[in-house]
Amino acid sequence: MAQKPSIPKGTRDFTPAEVAKRNYIFDVTKRHFETFGFQPIETPSFENSETLMGKYGDEGDRLIFKILNSGDYLNKVDDATYTTKNSTSLTSKISEKALRYDLTVPFARYVVMHHNEIDFPFKRYQIQPVWRADRPQKGRFREFYQCDADVVGADSLLQEVEFIQLYDAVFTDLGLDGVDIKINNRKILAGIAEVIGAKDLLIDFTVALDKLDKIGAEGVKKEMVTKGISADSIAEVEPLFSLSGSNSAKVSTLKELLSDSEEGSKGVEELAYIFETVAALGLQSAKLSIDVTLARGLNYYTGAILEVAAPKNVDMGSIGGGGRYDDLTGIFGLKDVSGVGISFGLDRIYLVLEELGLFPDTLDQSLQVLCLNFGVKEAMAALKLTTSLRKSGIKADLYPSDAKIQKQFKYANNRNVPYVILIGEKELKGNSFVVKHMDSGDQKSYDLKNPDDFIQQLKNG
Amino acid sequence: MAQKPSIPKGTRDFTPAEVAKRNYIFDVTKRHFETFGFQPIETPSFENSETLMGKYGDEGDRLIFKILNSGDYLNKVDDATYTTKNSTSLTSKISEKALRYDLTVPFARYVVMHHNEIDFPFKRYQIQPVWRADRPQKGRFREFYQCDADVVGADSLLQEVEFIQLYDAVFTDLGLDGVDIKINNRKILAGIAEVIGAKDLLIDFTVALDKLDKIGAEGVKKEMVTKGISADSIAEVEPLFSLSGSNSAKVSTLKELLSDSEEGSKGVEELAYIFETVAALGLQSAKLSIDVTLARGLNYYTGAILEVAAPKNVDMGSIGGGGRYDDLTGIFGLKDVSGVGISFGLDRIYLVLEELGLFPDTLDQSLQVLCLNFGVKEAMAALKLTTSLRKSGIKADLYPSDAKIQKQFKYANNRNVPYVILIGEKELKGNSFVVKHMDSGDQKSYDLKNPDDFIQQLKNG
Repeated sequence: MAQKPSIPKGTRDFTPAEVAKRNYIFDVTKRHFETFGFQPIETPSFENSETLMGKYGDEGDRLIFKILNSGDYLNKVDDATYTTKNSTSLTSKISEKALRYDLTVPFARYVVMHHNEIDFPFKRYQIQPVWRADRPQKGRFREFYQCDADVVGADSLLQEVEFIQLYDAVFTDLGLDGVDIKINNRKILAGIAEVIGAKDLLIDFTVALDKLDKIGAEGVKKEMVTKGISADSIAEVEPLFSLSGSNSAKVSTLKELLSDSEEGSKGVEELAYIFETVAALGLQSAKLSIDVTLARGLNYYTGAILEVAAPKNVDMGSIGGGGRYDDLTGIFGLKDVSGVGISFGLDRIYLVLEELGLFPDTLDQSLQVLCLNFGVKEAMAALKLTTSLRKSGIKADLYPSDAKIQKQFKYANNRNVPYVILIGEKELKGNSFVVKHMDSGDQKSYDLKNPDDFIQQLKNG
Repeated sequence: MAQKPSIPKGTRDFTPAEVAKRNYIFDVTKRHFETFGFQPIETPSFENSETLMGKYGDEGDRLIFKILNSGDYLNKVDDATYTTKNSTSLTSKISEKALRYDLTVPFARYVVMHHNEIDFPFKRYQIQPVWRADRPQKGRFREFYQCDADVVGADSLLQEVEFIQLYDAVFTDLGLDGVDIKINNRKILAGIAEVIGAKDLLIDFTVALDKLDKIGAEGVKKEMVTKGISADSIAEVEPLFSLSGSNSAKVSTLKELLSDSEEGSKGVEELAYIFETVAALGLQSAKLSIDVTLARGLNYYTGAILEVAAPKNVDMGSIGGGGRYDDLTGIFGLKDVSGVGISFGLDRIYLVLEELGLFPDTLDQSLQVLCLNFGVKEAMAALKLTTSLRKSGIKADLYPSDAKIQKQFKYANNRNVPYVILIGEKELKGNSFVVKHMDSGDQKSYDLKNPDDFIQQLKNG
């Protein structure tokens, strides 16, 4: 009996309309990556397990999809291991490869393997799927694309400035005005830890401070106290609770607050430089704001930390993020390769553009012209015309059979075709074709021997 | 100790130069798919195992990469099965998902799952990687892209004509003139089987006939006799051994030869229609030729069979193929969905274009302009200029640090940048920038406040 087919939980088929929208986002992003001098690389979908395992913590190891060895894979498993019937110990004996979990570790591996042929600074972008054995839920998938741009081998803060410009360029081009690029610096967080005299409470502190919007200054202070941060320490950083006004005002406040911490002061200085430079260059539609609560991947980033919030009128949260890290490739034996990178959250950007109606209408137009089919002879004339249109780069098709005209029109409607061409017996005799504009119903006749008039009209929109 | 990283056998990293070339082929192909009215779909990288298993024969089943279940996967395995320590019986207990092996079965699954929302005829294209646990060797990989276009739900021979035009359009656009599109028809092969009175010897017959070029007519006849085909039968199809001349001459010969077979005559009729129609429309650079030895996927195709041979001056063999099949979706319970499809052999096309030097030179230019960095103040001016260039769609970059100018020039050389911009102390004072053309060494000065002159020059090539 035939199976009723399905797809694995957490995976998706993409229909033509969805692919068109996704490709639109990719194409815009890629175009800007390339004008900014980034180059694409691609890495294999699966890596040797030892490349991935142990790089994402215990939880990450669990969520990595492992590929079963081929052939008689149990042949190599010793009986002692086998008889314990323990999944964890068996896995490494029967699986040597695993699906990519993110793009960062494969990129690090790539840089190490290819570093003799790379011209540093190396600006690379990578847009490929990753896989995670996470519990699927709304907006969380087991297969999804990541979209990363990184520069490695460049210490200059100009990189941070460029990434802010890049976010601005992409989101402006996507019509997504008003994104908020939030910036912080790991050194500022370290400075705060110094000031409150408790480096080990930094995470608790940051988590609490992050709730400022929701629970107010008093709520935050209360939570801090329960986490073991002393009232004196909290008083010390009191200005953090009312950090407001212009970015330069915020910088001044932070400068003062962290004046006793060398690292903190360095962080403020970096932040100030980035702000001044970005201000001098100007942003097109994004705004840049200091957010001292921002701490994504705290253990990973060493300098600037970036996160992009969707415009206020959509409830979506972060649609991108990144920062500077000091040691990308150390895990693979290549020391002192620092870098900065950002990523774009494709699935969320898609949802935001959808919600705000920002996808161009033309994406729906998978076909610009459909020639109807009135029989063998007429179809031959229509096919010649279709061939001319296609050679001019127009998306054109001929209905494949002389089905009832009603059915053919229905197909044209379903495919959202703006122009339908009719070549019936009469037209064929008169060496003409009739173009019907589907929205207005207007019809116009053209010379079959000279379709250029129609082609020009179509190209001019 | 740090690992020395590697990638799994049969997989590849793609460097920026390689991605650029691959994307060039994809982009050209996609553009023509779309002018021909095809729409893109994407399916998940892994499918439920039952979707894939049993669809490609025993050999295929072995070559499918299986994904290990997550978590404590041995927990669900009963002791009786486990203690046999048999890989084959254990696999289905510990693995429920498998990596895509080709694009055809997932497409059939897609059509069945989405058939209520699809407007037939459905013209889809799909360009995605597939994975096979084959022994890696020169030109054979464990991860590689397939590139397919199919029409389902249309019986008209116009589809075959269109696919021939599509091959011609893509290969002409790629500059690969002189490809040979070989065509045959399953019904002709069946007709020959009828004429020689041995349907079950059809494959032996085709295999032998295929060697005509190499071993000559006598060699072929000899092999046929050893396979049990009678001398009388061979005499019956004698004209096949000297099939030559124009396509219409070949059609005439076949017509006569197969006049006693209804199915064979139908096949010749179809072939003749396709030839006449293609001839009336004209091809740009490809040629179309009858090849009665062509039998790819004999059990699969039911009508036309197509294969594209690279131009004679490269030794590469087939760079594409396809045909008509009657029952794509029957395996998933949806009857009577016939289709026609073709595929493009990306890796081989890549090698052919490389060998013939047909990749455009501009693909090497990942950066059009590099601004050198002469220090903080100068870099700021250069960054403003870079920002303007990027906004005009030019691939531009600023060297991130004021390293020695020699080093910066070396970087420009390595990245094959045609123009280097110099803004030193003198230029900054004079509000100008100097453009150096790297090939000729020519230098020209421009007004820093009005970079449009340079932008226009660059855009005009």
